[in-house]
Amino acid sequence: MKIAVLGTGGGGRAHAAKLLELGHKVFVGTRDPEATLTRTEPDMMGNPPYGQWLADHPGLTLLSFGEAAAAADELVINGIDGHNAVAALSDIADQLAGKTLVDYAVPFIYNPDVEHPWPTPWGVMPKLDPVDTDSLGEQIQRALPKTRVVKSFVTQEQSTVVDPKAIGGGDHTMFVAGDHADAKQAVTDLLKSYGWSDILDLGPLVCARGMEMYAHMHSAIGFGLGQQSGGHFGIKVVR
Amino acid sequence: MKIAVLGTGGGGRAHAAKLLELGHKVFVGTRDPEATLTRTEPDMMGNPPYGQWLADHPGLTLLSFGEAAAAADELVINGIDGHNAVAALSDIADQLAGKTLVDYAVPFIYNPDVEHPWPTPWGVMPKLDPVDTDSLGEQIQRALPKTRVVKSFVTQEQSTVVDPKAIGGGDHTMFVAGDHADAKQAVTDLLKSYGWSDILDLGPLVCARGMEMYAHMHSAIGFGLGQQSGGHFGIKVVR
Repeated sequence: MKIAVLGTGGGGRAHAAKLLELGHKVFVGTRDPEATLTRTEPDMMGNPPYGQWLADHPGLTLLSFGEAAAAADELVINGIDGHNAVAALSDIADQLAGKTLVDYAVPFIYNPDVEHPWPTPWGVMPKLDPVDTDSLGEQIQRALPKTRVVKSFVTQEQSTVVDPKAIGGGDHTMFVAGDHADAKQAVTDLLKSYGWSDILDLGPLVCARGMEMYAHMHSAIGFGLGQQSGGHFGIKVVR
Repeated sequence: MKIAVLGTGGGGRAHAAKLLELGHKVFVGTRDPEATLTRTEPDMMGNPPYGQWLADHPGLTLLSFGEAAAAADELVINGIDGHNAVAALSDIADQLAGKTLVDYAVPFIYNPDVEHPWPTPWGVMPKLDPVDTDSLGEQIQRALPKTRVVKSFVTQEQSTVVDPKAIGGGDHTMFVAGDHADAKQAVTDLLKSYGWSDILDLGPLVCARGMEMYAHMHSAIGFGLGQQSGGHFGIKVVR
């Protein structure tokens, strides 16, 4: 398949590399391809410069957000950070129309000018916006009525999403939620190709609220297990 | 031990019955014992009248909130609903001073006069208050500076909390969070006596935010599994 991955952060890189390995044609979208390629410093999260990473992954095509979305035949993975996702995706609504968009962003507010009210022993915890009575997944769906939005991936580290067997032999649970059954099936098929066997359909996209709000629990579990866990754990729904 | 259980709902009943079975002296607290005993209708959640239930559990002592808290030698379980917990517990701060209070409430707003913004296919989902930047557990700790508050139980159905082996042979995870190590140890010991073997200390009480916000995910998983699941599942942290 021709699949687009929007975003050049750690999550986007994990998906792009895995999809390439699985034999797909992968189109990576970024705001400004030239700027992305000329950057020589690690990004905000400490990932090496994208140009350097791209050289190690021949076969990937780096385009603008809109060009990458247009190149996908059906599936687009949204790896744009939560704070910027609605605006950036609205700009390319036409290119996303008729396609399935998987969103895994957490709507954290990282604005350094905002006082964050959750200082923790392990640093400052960003707050969520929206939270509780709305979700980023729903906001994106409202902004893109011609696109089928599926929320998934968000309850796991991105390295685990593309390599579930690295944790407990793969015996843990991935969730999907969305208002379009065919789109959820497409994402479920993608997850199976990543190695997932326990995929639970939570129901409509309103369930994205619970999935995004789980972010704080995910952080707490990671730190409860100790800094050394590095998010290297999964959640299993035990029936 | 002499243990107090505040609240006469389903959670309070589950704990009171289990503690009695384990050989403890159990003091159940309610706002107005006489009113509780004279009620002949099922409660809001469909539980049978408390007087009837109490007759089936000889050995339990029904008192006011303050009398029950005073009767506990160390451990008090808070089963007062989230919306009323801070006010009701503040009223008995003196009786709770120097003791460990385990809180498992979710701060749902059930006020029928408030328009709930989360109508779901399975009904209306109450919103949380506080959420994200504060938690009920922290509010209770601030209101009771002389009490050691531990947040626990909240990520499971109460029937599961007192009978973990009913799900997957007991191989799933219970969480504790709090600012007092000795209090967390007391709650961990209680959980072990209930049959829990995988108990993860998340860290300070600020982690109660993630635990309470997990409520929406818990609901979504329950409904994803189907109405027939009846909350009959657990969450395992797979390392």
